[in-house]
Amino acid sequence: MRRRLILLLLPVAALLSVSAGFVYVQWSKGGPGSGLYSRYWSPDPVQGYWDPDNFYRSPDSVSGVFDGKLCVQCHEGITPGIVADWRASRHARGDNPVYCSNCHGSDHQQLHMPTPLVCANCHEKQHDAFLDEARYGFPSHVLAMERAVDAPHFADKPKAEVQSCVQCHSVATKCDSCHTRHRFDAAEARRSEACITCHSGPPHPDDETYFASAHGQLYLAEGKNWDWSKPLIKGNYRAPTCAYCHMDGGRHQVAHKSLWKFGLREINPHTSQNSVLRRRWIDLCSDCHEERQATQWLTELDGERKAAWHKLYQAETMLKKLRSDDLIRPSADERPDYPMGSLWPRERIGFFEGQASAFYNVSAIERDYFEMWYFDSLGAYKSAAHGDAAGVREGHRKMAASLDRIESRAGRLRQLAKTAKENELSPDLSGLWSSGAYTDHNREHN
Amino acid sequence: MRRRLILLLLPVAALLSVSAGFVYVQWSKGGPGSGLYSRYWSPDPVQGYWDPDNFYRSPDSVSGVFDGKLCVQCHEGITPGIVADWRASRHARGDNPVYCSNCHGSDHQQLHMPTPLVCANCHEKQHDAFLDEARYGFPSHVLAMERAVDAPHFADKPKAEVQSCVQCHSVATKCDSCHTRHRFDAAEARRSEACITCHSGPPHPDDETYFASAHGQLYLAEGKNWDWSKPLIKGNYRAPTCAYCHMDGGRHQVAHKSLWKFGLREINPHTSQNSVLRRRWIDLCSDCHEERQATQWLTELDGERKAAWHKLYQAETMLKKLRSDDLIRPSADERPDYPMGSLWPRERIGFFEGQASAFYNVSAIERDYFEMWYFDSLGAYKSAAHGDAAGVREGHRKMAASLDRIESRAGRLRQLAKTAKENELSPDLSGLWSSGAYTDHNREHN
Amino acid sequence: MRRRLILLLLPVAALLSVSAGFVYVQWSKGGPGSGLYSRYWSPDPVQGYWDPDNFYRSPDSVSGVFDGKLCVQCHEGITPGIVADWRASRHARGDNPVYCSNCHGSDHQQLHMPTPLVCANCHEKQHDAFLDEARYGFPSHVLAMERAVDAPHFADKPKAEVQSCVQCHSVATKCDSCHTRHRFDAAEARRSEACITCHSGPPHPDDETYFASAHGQLYLAEGKNWDWSKPLIKGNYRAPTCAYCHMDGGRHQVAHKSLWKFGLREINPHTSQNSVLRRRWIDLCSDCHEERQATQWLTELDGERKAAWHKLYQAETMLKKLRSDDLIRPSADERPDYPMGSLWPRERIGFFEGQASAFYNVSAIERDYFEMWYFDSLGAYKSAAHGDAAGVREGHRKMAASLDRIESRAGRLRQLAKTAKENELSPDLSGLWSSGAYTDHNREHN
Repeated sequence: MRRRLILLLLPVAALLSVSAGFVYVQWSKGGPGSGLYSRYWSPDPVQGYWDPDNFYRSPDSVSGVFDGKLCVQCHEGITPGIVADWRASRHARGDNPVYCSNCHGSDHQQLHMPTPLVCANCHEKQHDAFLDEARYGFPSHVLAMERAVDAPHFADKPKAEVQSCVQCHSVATKCDSCHTRHRFDAAEARRSEACITCHSGPPHPDDETYFASAHGQLYLAEGKNWDWSKPLIKGNYRAPTCAYCHMDGGRHQVAHKSLWKFGLREINPHTSQNSVLRRRWIDLCSDCHEERQATQWLTELDGERKAAWHKLYQAETMLKKLRSDDLIRPSADERPDYPMGSLWPRERIGFFEGQASAFYNVSAIERDYFEMWYFDSLGAYKSAAHGDAAGVREGHRKMAASLDRIESRAGRLRQLAKTAKENELSPDLSGLWSSGAYTDHNREHN
Repeated sequence: MRRRLILLLLPVAALLSVSAGFVYVQWSKGGPGSGLYSRYWSPDPVQGYWDPDNFYRSPDSVSGVFDGKLCVQCHEGITPGIVADWRASRHARGDNPVYCSNCHGSDHQQLHMPTPLVCANCHEKQHDAFLDEARYGFPSHVLAMERAVDAPHFADKPKAEVQSCVQCHSVATKCDSCHTRHRFDAAEARRSEACITCHSGPPHPDDETYFASAHGQLYLAEGKNWDWSKPLIKGNYRAPTCAYCHMDGGRHQVAHKSLWKFGLREINPHTSQNSVLRRRWIDLCSDCHEERQATQWLTELDGERKAAWHKLYQAETMLKKLRSDDLIRPSADERPDYPMGSLWPRERIGFFEGQASAFYNVSAIERDYFEMWYFDSLGAYKSAAHGDAAGVREGHRKMAASLDRIESRAGRLRQLAKTAKENELSPDLSGLWSSGAYTDHNREHN
Repeated sequence: MRRRLILLLLPVAALLSVSAGFVYVQWSKGGPGSGLYSRYWSPDPVQGYWDPDNFYRSPDSVSGVFDGKLCVQCHEGITPGIVADWRASRHARGDNPVYCSNCHGSDHQQLHMPTPLVCANCHEKQHDAFLDEARYGFPSHVLAMERAVDAPHFADKPKAEVQSCVQCHSVATKCDSCHTRHRFDAAEARRSEACITCHSGPPHPDDETYFASAHGQLYLAEGKNWDWSKPLIKGNYRAPTCAYCHMDGGRHQVAHKSLWKFGLREINPHTSQNSVLRRRWIDLCSDCHEERQATQWLTELDGERKAAWHKLYQAETMLKKLRSDDLIRPSADERPDYPMGSLWPRERIGFFEGQASAFYNVSAIERDYFEMWYFDSLGAYKSAAHGDAAGVREGHRKMAASLDRIESRAGRLRQLAKTAKENELSPDLSGLWSSGAYTDHNREHN
């Protein structure tokens, strides 16, 4: 009822919200860096290192303007490790080295941490490719930070938890997520470890699934002896790494052949647009394998996805039935709103209403569904895509277990509702799946 | 009731089934390759690479008959990586190299993928040892494919799921599961990574448990610097690998000292036959350790198994009680049959009725039991056998948690049955633990 | 009631218990090695290798007194691997090698396995530092064995399970837990693998969290090529290993900067004593990072801990409410006692009454709480401390799931109690979370 009144007031609210500062500022365009919900949180100091353009503040402990050689001289004693890394880098070579000051500035009270734009001064081609990923939408590296801070739960969750998200989503705002400072060696970035720091664990177990594959095992057994100075092209490597397939030839844009993307949604894998992506995928695999075999593996992946969505839709159907019988307690109406939630009131069931909507502040049974989709199914997907046979089986086992749990919870909900009705009691509103304190508390304190 | 009628008709049905094509054709003897349930499924094209003898079809894109040198010349451009692998192999050396055509044939429209029999032309001793494993029954490498396609759920499950099984079970039908193509280097196969591609994840976490052991950690820390050209005998390696223990001396038969095998069944570890296996085990460990210490570790493993079976029997007892009280819903009678299930109607509770019977199409509580046995217990076993202390503890913790879950479900089943009886309702048949659609659907579409 | 009677008899019982052999003998002081509950268990033979000072018995198969050169000569044939390890060690170098007999004795019927005291003959400084860790209490290496055998469940659990604990806790009683025999190379012990054999899995996933961090990935990618002969000081390594941070400079005492320790208890991280530890922590990180950044990361860790304890206290509150309503069944009174449990009767809810109290022999809901604390929360802690972003998120997700499970169980308990009351039934005492058979059985047979 409350919500319906608000809906009637929507046009007014929209106007008010604009004047109240709700206007969206695109993170990547140098806005305040705190996204759609900027009113609700302030950055922790450590965020200055993760999104330096927006939040880094130079320390004022040392004053003076130094040229690069002096930086090196002094830091040789203070932080010899990073100086050694720089010395071993291409930046330190030749007659005209790239010194500390070239990237960090020379006024020690005005230091900055380099952003992709700083690197773009010399590495324009790579930066352009990096930006180009935005064309393919999210998930993508270049939009990673923006999407993190624009998620409703970013403002609503205790910061201690969302910080761990930002740590990796900072791949959008600095280049040393993949190229370790201060070596910045292409040879290093060609190795899978460069990607794995972030690409592990649910919902993106690339670590687990790649290394469990025949490709990954070959890399583990022999990769140490391969010549990593060679470019990522046909014939140079015995087995593919993350970058070999996703950044073939060194292209700094990984969405180039992303067909199913993260497996987040069901797609028609045979649209004309997707046929282009399929072609790229198969061509790449044909560097080593018979083209026909590559095609067949991709068909297997399509089959795995179809089986996964078959299970997901079963869960969705159960939840929709519960909702139409008003048995999901608390209902969307009874739950605390997300920020701006009153403008676009939404039932929150899983993937078809967007990823962010089911992370938190939902009933336990909806969270089960969310995990089935975001953890179990995506894990099965990555396993199938990377050739990790055990992971496919395990992902589907977990999906089946989730279905069982959802069915079991649904049965209990129906039973409770029946008992409540018989005894003329109002339904029990417990069971909100939350993780930490919510909403008002965090908005005030984040 | 239905089942009882069918039982009476069993002799008739048996006769009919023979004439209808149910006759078992042994996979490894060059039959159709689809095993006991061949009527119910057809292979996906990719299966041609996994079971080439039965399903591979040569592509017809290129015609002509080529001798080995010409193969190499052309593929140097098309797939340079695999040519480089071959050049680095022993096959490429000497006056009389083993060319592509020696294994794949020279008519490009009649190419074949090599099976173990092809390799046996030169590597007879290894192939004989490989075949010899069959003597020890399943699990074994040589019977792996046969047992996969002969499992009832192979025909009944969506193919997208069982494909992931076949991918590894193809160890029976081609040698490059362990020896990566086209290098086929013994040094490579001596390393644990050669085995780990398949031996990871439940129910056979050899990966996780070996690498978590002191042996595995030593291998990870130093293995890269060991001389892998040395044979797998005493004194050549600082720590054992998979092959060092299971294929000592290079014997291509891993069942040689398999005492508890996968931990699937409780055994008497001290029969005269098992004493022979114990002796082999202890002798092997004595390459590095005091014999008495090796003996004591094996005794500890026996103790771990005894404790595991103690837990498993507790669960079994609970389930048997539920069954005798007719509280497992749906009962075996109420569930869809496996193919040929009507010939041998079986209650389906866990290990004592065979592994395949409890994978799917069982009630949720039976599946809990299955997972306790097949995942938790086998994980604890592998941990104990490989010296992964944390894994033993974790496996037993999981078994205890499974017991708790089973007890909790049993309580709810009894409660539901009581309520149903009081209200003169028929019992609720929901709760079938399934993973994907079943039976008729798949039999028609697999 | 029974318990109250026993309480009245406590002074008498105390006296009796002393005379009956309950007197505590400190393990590390050369007592019988079986700790507080020595009456209830006897060691398995393999324990002789894990706690050699107390339990090792020399084999009597070979007689004679041999000097070191003879040991080597004979064992070159019997166990060539360990002789090769010794030859590669510093012990074998120079004019005056440390022979087998120097550590194991020369009478083959009186051999012993070296304890830390044996190593201390030459490596006094390291041994002193090792002993010094005791100052910081438990967890610590030097107290690890003592605390294992003094835990009530050590005597009460089937030995097959507690053996896996002792295997790692033997770090207190022999040096080859970290320095592999018979190489004893410092270079080896500097690598993370030296620690990981024990530090993996819940409740101490140091393995998983370190290797998932940027530090760990750098180590995995490049560590093989680093010069491990260098000491663990600033500038020598591109990324930190376990030892670099926890044993900086080679100090054999890892509690030196342990602030939150294992995350077991909530602390005030800003006491004057803890400020000293913080300073050490930050100084160490400043070897490579800006001091301010190190400080901010530590603040993030504090924040993560605060969020974790916020969740843990929610669970505790639920359990306390259940207890005060007498709804935890079986109650502490109704459960089998631990050994000596009747002397100090305790309610057993989680961390605030000590770790050992909630391992086993508790109700299922209490065990849920225990796992939330000991597995989920500690995993999140290690992730935050080691910079494993995904692990923080996953740990908090698991804590939230545990909260949901606890709430769900609590609801069912309340429902069952209500039903029982309405029907004038006594409450159901099922649901004891146990793992294996208990108490009397084990005390007699362990």
